[in-house]
Amino acid sequence: MSFWSLTSSNFIPNLVKKGEAVILFQIDKNSQVPVYRQIIQKIIHFIDEGILIAGNPLPATRILAAKLEVNRSTVYRAYQELISLGYIESEPGSYTRVRKRIQPVPLDTPRKSRIRWSQRSTDFGRALYRTYENFHPEYTTPESSKDVINLSQLDLDPRLFPVDDFRRCINQVFSLHGSPMLQYGSYPGYAPLRKTISLRLRMHGISIAPDEILITSGAQQAIDLILRLLIRKSDTVAVEMPTYANFIPLLRGHQAEIMGIPMLEEGMDLEYFQRSMKKRLPALLYTIPNFHNPTGITTSQEHREKLLTLCGIHGIPIVEDGFEEDMKYLGRVVLPIKSIDHNGVVIYLGTFSKVLFPGIRIGWIAADMECIRRLTAIKRFTDISTNQVVQIALDQFIRLGYYDLNIRRLHRIFRKRMQHALSAMETYMPAHVTWTKPLGGYTIWVHLHNSVDENRLKQRMLANGVLVSHGSYFFVNGRHRDAVRLSISRLNEEEIEVGIKRFSKVLTDL
Amino acid sequence: MSFWSLTSSNFIPNLVKKGEAVILFQIDKNSQVPVYRQIIQKIIHFIDEGILIAGNPLPATRILAAKLEVNRSTVYRAYQELISLGYIESEPGSYTRVRKRIQPVPLDTPRKSRIRWSQRSTDFGRALYRTYENFHPEYTTPESSKDVINLSQLDLDPRLFPVDDFRRCINQVFSLHGSPMLQYGSYPGYAPLRKTISLRLRMHGISIAPDEILITSGAQQAIDLILRLLIRKSDTVAVEMPTYANFIPLLRGHQAEIMGIPMLEEGMDLEYFQRSMKKRLPALLYTIPNFHNPTGITTSQEHREKLLTLCGIHGIPIVEDGFEEDMKYLGRVVLPIKSIDHNGVVIYLGTFSKVLFPGIRIGWIAADMECIRRLTAIKRFTDISTNQVVQIALDQFIRLGYYDLNIRRLHRIFRKRMQHALSAMETYMPAHVTWTKPLGGYTIWVHLHNSVDENRLKQRMLANGVLVSHGSYFFVNGRHRDAVRLSISRLNEEEIEVGIKRFSKVLTDL
Repeated sequence: MSFWSLTSSNFIPNLVKKGEAVILFQIDKNSQVPVYRQIIQKIIHFIDEGILIAGNPLPATRILAAKLEVNRSTVYRAYQELISLGYIESEPGSYTRVRKRIQPVPLDTPRKSRIRWSQRSTDFGRALYRTYENFHPEYTTPESSKDVINLSQLDLDPRLFPVDDFRRCINQVFSLHGSPMLQYGSYPGYAPLRKTISLRLRMHGISIAPDEILITSGAQQAIDLILRLLIRKSDTVAVEMPTYANFIPLLRGHQAEIMGIPMLEEGMDLEYFQRSMKKRLPALLYTIPNFHNPTGITTSQEHREKLLTLCGIHGIPIVEDGFEEDMKYLGRVVLPIKSIDHNGVVIYLGTFSKVLFPGIRIGWIAADMECIRRLTAIKRFTDISTNQVVQIALDQFIRLGYYDLNIRRLHRIFRKRMQHALSAMETYMPAHVTWTKPLGGYTIWVHLHNSVDENRLKQRMLANGVLVSHGSYFFVNGRHRDAVRLSISRLNEEEIEVGIKRFSKVLTDL
Repeated sequence: MSFWSLTSSNFIPNLVKKGEAVILFQIDKNSQVPVYRQIIQKIIHFIDEGILIAGNPLPATRILAAKLEVNRSTVYRAYQELISLGYIESEPGSYTRVRKRIQPVPLDTPRKSRIRWSQRSTDFGRALYRTYENFHPEYTTPESSKDVINLSQLDLDPRLFPVDDFRRCINQVFSLHGSPMLQYGSYPGYAPLRKTISLRLRMHGISIAPDEILITSGAQQAIDLILRLLIRKSDTVAVEMPTYANFIPLLRGHQAEIMGIPMLEEGMDLEYFQRSMKKRLPALLYTIPNFHNPTGITTSQEHREKLLTLCGIHGIPIVEDGFEEDMKYLGRVVLPIKSIDHNGVVIYLGTFSKVLFPGIRIGWIAADMECIRRLTAIKRFTDISTNQVVQIALDQFIRLGYYDLNIRRLHRIFRKRMQHALSAMETYMPAHVTWTKPLGGYTIWVHLHNSVDENRLKQRMLANGVLVSHGSYFFVNGRHRDAVRLSISRLNEEEIEVGIKRFSKVLTDL
């Protein structure tokens, strides 16, 4: 058992004698630090240093107060806080004692969780995790081989980013708006930006009010919000086959049944869709009518009308992904399905990721007001609102005309790049291979007419300094191995030609 | 039936004779516009103007080519594109005819959706929507009464935002990084920022590696991701009662059973929790140990240890919301539960919203690596990644020391403000009222010891020029009407005093 000796005037180093600690400490009554806090600090010091250990009793408040020549309530207050901090404990009718305290986890210790996260995981979490670990529809260029030409990634060429213009806009809006722009934004998104987007959508024939628009963190969040609103477990979702690779795992996560509609040259096979619909009515149809990802196909006006009529009759909401709407640079414009949607059936979504830059994470949904309000409710409780700083800067960027300039520039550049790509395909591709001829966007779909194993293909591609995306990622069952996607989004004409030449060699060698 | 007359040299206005249209048009072979496109444009013009109507036949390609003195393939190409655009249709063995085309929706027409969104909505969507429309735990100041003192909102005072410093950092990182910063960020978040956060967490006694951190769009998304990973329908979630208002609707959305643990002066009632646990083991426990929202209570070390031990034994993950961790400005620091979590039980979350500004939407989750990887998988497929521009700027802001300067400044300011608020409470509050004495953060919880109707209270408050939050929003059943939350986050000392004085008048008058 320990023994305490106290003085208020002198500091004497502590002595340990026959297992009994004689601890002495000084209180400085002239200090800025209040006396009760000095008491706390000393006792914590003794405990942290191991001078006092678990089980050691502390003197009664009355005794310590007398020894320190301070008010008893001062000591009482210090003890109360030490109890709160977990250093000491007091039981009625007994000594106040030093507690056995859980020690902080030492830095950089390897730990193992007691929770088995895999067992605890929801079906949603499990499905996405399973995919996450092995899902690479777009290959990144390996660090070791920087001269690899990447026709796999569908990101816009960063060399084309209007960085300085955007930076200028950020600076302008900081001056114009100041601190309010750093507050929470409104749930549906920055109102002037919604207005700007509604005006831009008019150029695509879409008549929509700012209140019918919800700003999202990119198109991916837009899709997720729509699924959260409309898809119950085991609901059927109709999608083009192939389709946007990142959509398939999300559908699996939501435990949707996937109705894959084969893509024909003109778009999804509407007769197939009609037949499938008779077996089971989908809760939603997802389509990319312009520069379809991955095939690059633009559907005709007639196809759009038929699809809209079909879905309208059966009350199937259409999610129209206009992710590259502004990238029409060849041939005549076909307007979005949303432009002829008299019945509020189409949920249209857009993004700035493929025509400006993806790092700002701004997309939007344009749909019937009631649908938008319900989607906004989900967004409000799941991430409150989208980054307002960037919304305001983007609005400025569009209003000042930088966005239009940027689009015109991209049109000039990609019209040439696509034409160059298509003529390089003519020149270099082996005879048995066929491909689509897109009117815009960045992707070309190549039918190899031979099944090709992904690993073997990737290995051969890396050996030849080129990468394209394996077709299987764009199909639900992953069994389609006779096609690949080429993306020209990151490359200039010279690189495209070399890449296609190399890829044709890969095909010839396989 | 219509009749076509064509010439390649002269333009003659169209004549309508006995229901038969005689349409004539000119092709300019010297024009920059290709001939096939001129044909398309003319025919579209005639259709859009109603000169040609649905059912009218077009001349055979052979005949039109002869009349225009152009190659037949040119006319064929034009017809093909007109078919794609939906203007004409052709059936085998019949005339090519003008199609009945769905007209674009006129601008600014009121529309009604054929889809009944309320019926189509998931339970998740329905629960959040129902709440969204009537959920205002924090009142905004009405436009009409700008002199209202708002003690309701828990946003940081925008007058204290370090706007210029942040803007400087954005400019610096634009110069340093250029266009790559505008690309997609990595799924778990910008690696240097995760490292910076891991170093900052060490100051709070938390030992965590950068790979054990996931950057999120604010704390709200962090919470939603955790629920998506761990909460199945009808799972029980234990929460302090009262708790963070925005968490309750989200739990309802996820269809969780809510186990409300009453808050005592020292934190949640652990004995009550232990008893409840015997009936049903929660899948998760959510706690705010520092400056609890709404009560302002900081739990003791001993309380934290007991809670951790309890949850550790039963394998209940603890979600520790450290949303104001850095706002400890009075009294001694009590370290987060995560600091003593030897068993990877605690999922810790933080945010910059309450100590810097919320408009950047940056929060994070720090937890066991496997948990983080599973959460990252969800984030990757639901919004890909968090805004990278802002992450890089924020990392610069912290590394250059602006963040620490900001925190120290906020401590000085809010130490005074909180002390001022507490002494104003002493001065003005009616005798029967009691309140908490927070050691940090922004909120004071006031027990009125009388049930007060929300509408009546709000009306009286607006009449007196003050707003506080009604207590019912922080409880699951909404029946607790004998408490209110005061937030001092947006106000200076003078405003706080006037606000409290006014509020005491409201209470006296009720």
